[in-house]
Amino acid sequence: RIVAEVERVLGPNDLDGVRLVVSAGGTREPIDSVRVIANRSSGKQGYAVAAEALARGASVTIVSTVSLPTPPGAVVVPVETAAEMHAAMNAAADDHDVVVMAAAVADFRPASAATGKIKKRDGVPEIVLEPTPDILAGLGENKRAGQVLVGFAAETDDLIANATSKLEKKRLDLIVANDVGAPEVGFAHDTNAVTLLRPDAKPVEIDLAAKRDVARAVIDTIVDIRRTR
Amino acid sequence: RIVAEVERVLGPNDLDGVRLVVSAGGTREPIDSVRVIANRSSGKQGYAVAAEALARGASVTIVSTVSLPTPPGAVVVPVETAAEMHAAMNAAADDHDVVVMAAAVADFRPASAATGKIKKRDGVPEIVLEPTPDILAGLGENKRAGQVLVGFAAETDDLIANATSKLEKKRLDLIVANDVGAPEVGFAHDTNAVTLLRPDAKPVEIDLAAKRDVARAVIDTIVDIRRTR
Repeated sequence: RIVAEVERVLGPNDLDGVRLVVSAGGTREPIDSVRVIANRSSGKQGYAVAAEALARGASVTIVSTVSLPTPPGAVVVPVETAAEMHAAMNAAADDHDVVVMAAAVADFRPASAATGKIKKRDGVPEIVLEPTPDILAGLGENKRAGQVLVGFAAETDDLIANATSKLEKKRLDLIVANDVGAPEVGFAHDTNAVTLLRPDAKPVEIDLAAKRDVARAVIDTIVDIRRTR
Repeated sequence: RIVAEVERVLGPNDLDGVRLVVSAGGTREPIDSVRVIANRSSGKQGYAVAAEALARGASVTIVSTVSLPTPPGAVVVPVETAAEMHAAMNAAADDHDVVVMAAAVADFRPASAATGKIKKRDGVPEIVLEPTPDILAGLGENKRAGQVLVGFAAETDDLIANATSKLEKKRLDLIVANDVGAPEVGFAHDTNAVTLLRPDAKPVEIDLAAKRDVARAVIDTIVDIRRTR
């Protein structure tokens, strides 16, 4: 009776005993010792997913490029570059049941970082770029039986088509499609508006809502995916 | 007697009635709608200068690229790019007695930002760069009589020589030279180690100290410059 009362107050413990890892923030790729190519992601949506998962009973690891307050109970693995995030997420995927890639990972990086600081008097530098590894595709290839893999697609054009293509190619169980060009949506905002896409389910649209509410919808869907297996 | 007691407790009001503007953070230059070229500056040293100036009685404006807590009493002008910071600092210089450029400004930026998000499937983009305006040099050229202009030099090589050259060329009254390659120094750290350089005074070295202590030494020097005029 007391347990039920606590559960009623605290909400469902439907991720009890589940290990969830979520990446958060944007990667930073060094140009030289002071400059980087960065993504605008604030990490807020990833941290909201972590906080919601913790509230639902999960053990949570956050692979993070940002220094937001750590939700009580979470383990934070700090990373900066796409290569560091790649290594940390691959390691975490080995012993986590749910893997959520909420971070914005650089698709390209300077092929080599300059030593020290590029001097203005040396003129405008040429920055040669190279592609970074596709972390989410790698996680999809190596997905373990029973593991749930969730991606985010931040798009400015052809949102649903691009996100559906990623869902299929990267063997995801859920993709959270995010029109970052819309007002009050995505990077740095406290609100978000997304569409949840699954391989064999109708799209679910979440209208403009707090990032914690979006996180709740994402976790609800993860619980549903796990239940229907 | 009460006023004196309050002054003793609160420290010297030696910037009473003085208007000080300080820039803080690193500029971000858009590559496309989600990616930027950024500088690593956390804005902490600039905000520490603002807090110290407020404690000493100044009216303070912060031209900021970051979202740190606003020190009580300060006015914050939010900016993102070097062009926005250029405009904001030029406007502020018109009616501020002390101008401190603590921000890390991009020396170069993408010549044009892509519309929307560059797609990975389109391959690695070529980013053509162009120089940004030298904000500090412009402030030096237009320096009003009696105005105090302070710059920061974040260097990884030939610190004193590079900073001294900037001090002279940009008509600064003080440059805070900052070896950002040293441990525990500069970007993101809460501590800093700097050398204060003036046109006609011996260099003053501040060993590794809290950024607020560095700010106190900077404000002490500004007060001294104003007093000896």
